[in-house]
Amino acid sequence: MELKYAVIGTGALGGYYGGRLANAGHDVHFLFHSDFDFVKEHGLKVDSVAGSFTVNPLNAYHKTSDMPACDVILVCLKTKNNHKLKDMLPPILHKNTVVILIQNGLGIEPELSEQFPDLAIAGGLAFICSSKLGKGHIGHFDFGKITIGSYHTENQDILEKVCADFIQSGVPAVFTTDLKKSRWQKLVWNIPFNGMTVVLNTTTEKLMKQPDSRQLIYDLMLEVIEAANHCGVEISAEFAEEMMRSTDNMTPYAPSMKLDSDAKRSMEIRAIYTNPIKTALKAGYEMKKTAMLEQQLRFIQCEFKS
Amino acid sequence: MELKYAVIGTGALGGYYGGRLANAGHDVHFLFHSDFDFVKEHGLKVDSVAGSFTVNPLNAYHKTSDMPACDVILVCLKTKNNHKLKDMLPPILHKNTVVILIQNGLGIEPELSEQFPDLAIAGGLAFICSSKLGKGHIGHFDFGKITIGSYHTENQDILEKVCADFIQSGVPAVFTTDLKKSRWQKLVWNIPFNGMTVVLNTTTEKLMKQPDSRQLIYDLMLEVIEAANHCGVEISAEFAEEMMRSTDNMTPYAPSMKLDSDAKRSMEIRAIYTNPIKTALKAGYEMKKTAMLEQQLRFIQCEFKS
Repeated sequence: MELKYAVIGTGALGGYYGGRLANAGHDVHFLFHSDFDFVKEHGLKVDSVAGSFTVNPLNAYHKTSDMPACDVILVCLKTKNNHKLKDMLPPILHKNTVVILIQNGLGIEPELSEQFPDLAIAGGLAFICSSKLGKGHIGHFDFGKITIGSYHTENQDILEKVCADFIQSGVPAVFTTDLKKSRWQKLVWNIPFNGMTVVLNTTTEKLMKQPDSRQLIYDLMLEVIEAANHCGVEISAEFAEEMMRSTDNMTPYAPSMKLDSDAKRSMEIRAIYTNPIKTALKAGYEMKKTAMLEQQLRFIQCEFKS
Repeated sequence: MELKYAVIGTGALGGYYGGRLANAGHDVHFLFHSDFDFVKEHGLKVDSVAGSFTVNPLNAYHKTSDMPACDVILVCLKTKNNHKLKDMLPPILHKNTVVILIQNGLGIEPELSEQFPDLAIAGGLAFICSSKLGKGHIGHFDFGKITIGSYHTENQDILEKVCADFIQSGVPAVFTTDLKKSRWQKLVWNIPFNGMTVVLNTTTEKLMKQPDSRQLIYDLMLEVIEAANHCGVEISAEFAEEMMRSTDNMTPYAPSMKLDSDAKRSMEIRAIYTNPIKTALKAGYEMKKTAMLEQQLRFIQCEFKS
């Protein structure tokens, strides 16, 4: 049986991952916001280091009430827009729909689960450098792997099918039985680099080059690992070194929070900083450096409005 | 007996404090750098909330070899220029000269003492908002108290005479028997505000207004107090609240490190951050937030050169 996919939020992530699936012939239905009229005419263009393509025509919608109920919903919004899901999701759900939150940070599955107690929820971690370049135009610069895991325990079969669809579409995909661990692992990169590129108004490359910022990045990684360990998630210190090496080899790239900051858009502070800090604190560990970065980010965010 | 004063570094501090002494009729000899020709003609102008004045003519010099030996030398350089003292001081020393380092930070008296083992050294803490406004032109905006204490134990009489001279010249001055404590108390303000105004490119006023940065400022103050306590210097947590209140009531003002950063000049990171961090670490306390601020500042400083 072919899975019917919905993509909620067709930006840097949704445009790339959904585009790959559609390009490989899967049945994908895209929700667009401001780009709707443009993509109806021109389609969705993806310039990718892994091979460029355009999806045209594509199943584009402006509101979920026009969309069919789908088997798999890929939520690719910024977490700060998750409050919209309460109204957006119901029209596209059937009784076996799985919603995959392809988002950064911690604590987002439980929030959705509170609003939809019976919904099958999963999480996705995108290890990708991609950006929206223009209307209906996505750039993919490096990496691309997606890790998917269930927030509940019953969805393994369908999630493995999703992974198989991704792989068949040219996206490296891995099913994990430990979503919590995957989320913390992602934070090991996201916490230092998102915040530090914003606070010091710089690039990952420059942070890695200057000895003091490089050390601070590494210290922050170790703090996230320490926090994870306190939360019962085993990540070894070597993982930080792996992340350092991987960043050294990365195409210079602005993390999403830096793009938000440059555009003076609200940043994903709560999911990436506040929730992990609170979760670690409950487990008895104080993320001192991360908390300082959070305070600096909140100050910067307040400045946007003034 | 009247004391003969030398002022080394006639800027925001040296210009104000030396200017006050000269204006009250004391025998003061000023070393100027780039402003020498200007002040020979126009004198030294001080615009002050405590009463403006101009010292003209004044004893201005371009190099210390032209100056007389003095009883009291007020060193008002930035600490990063202290390496110059090795050549600057000898021409103006006699056997009873006392050198007062009116500078921020920690560990500067021992450094000078290493170069001049027999020299009588003291420290001065200036609680003042003042800036150099132009050639031979100093602005004094708020506060002005100076606290003076000996690094050795033998200089109390002459330092009390210096304090009396300051008071007679309209400068609130206090002699302390605990210079180490005074230095740490000054750091309680300097560590949070110098670094944070630079890293977040903002003002003390905005940092005090936004709740997250205000909390971080307070957290940093408590960390400095904790470090001082570990170093055997008793400062109570109430001192942080006193500093918060005093800053709330302060005329908005850019700390010296912010002025340096704006001008892309080298910042006093070593005296204000590195030395206290190392001193606390030796005493068994890790200044985690302060160390993070130091790393961020070092990154920013490296960017000046690129």
